[in-house]
Amino acid sequence: MRTVGIIGLGLIGGSMAIDLKKRGFAGKVLGVEADKVAAQAAMTIGLADEMVSLEDCVDRSDIIVVAVPVGAAVKMLPEILDRIKEMPGQAGHDGGGRLGHDVMADPDRPSQKIVIDVCSTKEHICAAVKYHPARKQFVCTHPMAGTEYSGPWAAQPGLFDGRACIFADQEESAPWAVQDILELYSCLNMRPIFMSSSSHDVHTAYVSHISHVTSFALALTVLDKEKDEKHIFDLASGGFSSTVRLAKSNADMWIPILTQNHNNVLQVMDTYIEKMQQFRDAVASYDEDALRKLIEDANKIKRIIR
Amino acid sequence: MRTVGIIGLGLIGGSMAIDLKKRGFAGKVLGVEADKVAAQAAMTIGLADEMVSLEDCVDRSDIIVVAVPVGAAVKMLPEILDRIKEMPGQAGHDGGGRLGHDVMADPDRPSQKIVIDVCSTKEHICAAVKYHPARKQFVCTHPMAGTEYSGPWAAQPGLFDGRACIFADQEESAPWAVQDILELYSCLNMRPIFMSSSSHDVHTAYVSHISHVTSFALALTVLDKEKDEKHIFDLASGGFSSTVRLAKSNADMWIPILTQNHNNVLQVMDTYIEKMQQFRDAVASYDEDALRKLIEDANKIKRIIR
Repeated sequence: MRTVGIIGLGLIGGSMAIDLKKRGFAGKVLGVEADKVAAQAAMTIGLADEMVSLEDCVDRSDIIVVAVPVGAAVKMLPEILDRIKEMPGQAGHDGGGRLGHDVMADPDRPSQKIVIDVCSTKEHICAAVKYHPARKQFVCTHPMAGTEYSGPWAAQPGLFDGRACIFADQEESAPWAVQDILELYSCLNMRPIFMSSSSHDVHTAYVSHISHVTSFALALTVLDKEKDEKHIFDLASGGFSSTVRLAKSNADMWIPILTQNHNNVLQVMDTYIEKMQQFRDAVASYDEDALRKLIEDANKIKRIIR
Repeated sequence: MRTVGIIGLGLIGGSMAIDLKKRGFAGKVLGVEADKVAAQAAMTIGLADEMVSLEDCVDRSDIIVVAVPVGAAVKMLPEILDRIKEMPGQAGHDGGGRLGHDVMADPDRPSQKIVIDVCSTKEHICAAVKYHPARKQFVCTHPMAGTEYSGPWAAQPGLFDGRACIFADQEESAPWAVQDILELYSCLNMRPIFMSSSSHDVHTAYVSHISHVTSFALALTVLDKEKDEKHIFDLASGGFSSTVRLAKSNADMWIPILTQNHNNVLQVMDTYIEKMQQFRDAVASYDEDALRKLIEDANKIKRIIR
């Protein structure tokens, strides 16, 4: 059975820990958590079998999952690959070597360690390890699931079921490593999608990052203008609640996403502000034809989103 | 048992019809539906006991619910009150007269008819009937519930359970009429909230109308830029879906809301565009401190919205 080490036992890392263990992909889960309170919580909740140091985690795990905010991941990944490179039988020997213990009792599976990340932006991550001698042991993934909550308290079983997981620049990884990580995400019931890291960042800017920004702006607007909080609570219909939900999302996670995906995010924000302005002008001039056109064009999202 | 007439058997009218009948508030539901296809659907689904003309509905119902888009309601309400005014024992005689049949066997309940609307803007509605001789028989309400779907097909049981219902300018209605409509909404498990029609329109601009506009603009942005619809489908996480959900909302309903609540909606759109611009500038200049301040301020919505 594999040992899976998870660095960062927050919403994503913690939820992976729960299902990989429960569903039998991982025989053992090692957890790394820099924040003391979160580490204590992760142990109390039982997310990991053992809390260990980053070094121990890398040394003792078959698969190492980096589940920290993207800013920290960009720095951490080359260091982890450096450490792996120094180990006997690791790095650069595609398919060579075997671990001392039997991994899944599969004679064709190489014993080399695999490192994955689960970050929401991919270009900087891939650039940071592009020429690393252990690059083939790294698989760059983005499981597209989450909630607006964070920390070990937010971890939950079934978080990933039925969602998409993007594999970015998978041709840079060893095929056996990709295969193993496909199995990992298959255990989480995710659909794999393959694309380049740059395509990933363009598409997620449109389909994920902008909706967080629009939610933050909506919360700011309402909090700014509606000083009577009781009214917000009383009047919040299901519509408002669902639109503003993402505004609860964590700054530590979103600041690096927005700055790392800077160019794509700016472009989509500019388009968005333009559309809002068109709406504003149509309302300002009581232009019902223009409003109808805008709303009916927007309704076309029905074709795509259930 | 009361006869309740519902004009417009869409999402709101149809859902009211289901629960008022099932939960015993209405002995009989009369339906009015101008659209032939929708009328046929309402009968097939069984939303009303009988489909009737507008005139028949007014003549034969104890309570008349106007559940059409706000533009149509503003025109229709004075005409309905005109018709009621001409009936013997109706209008202007506060508490006088009794219906021929026994309403709920309550000797203190006057027999006069009551008209209510369920529209999302209230100032124009209240202004349109302010000096009407039958004004006391009109109760102005806004049940704050809904989905992004419309028509009789969207009607569902339990839609209103646990949500808020605003009574606007209730001092303009007869107390017995308000009491009866409180019972109606109590049957739907709604919490009543009382405010002026102008306060209603300010608060709903912030807490409901703007979130529809931000959703429409988000859908337009994504559809404009992301030409590959398969990607939108594949990559749409729960976050995007919930933020864009309201963009499926109906133009016939939303054009009159946005134009009737013109001043309030414009003000909130301007504030919103300003907040988006602040976000854009913080991203453009990689200003992490400004981003943190914006996101953490937005996070304060957690205090209010579950």
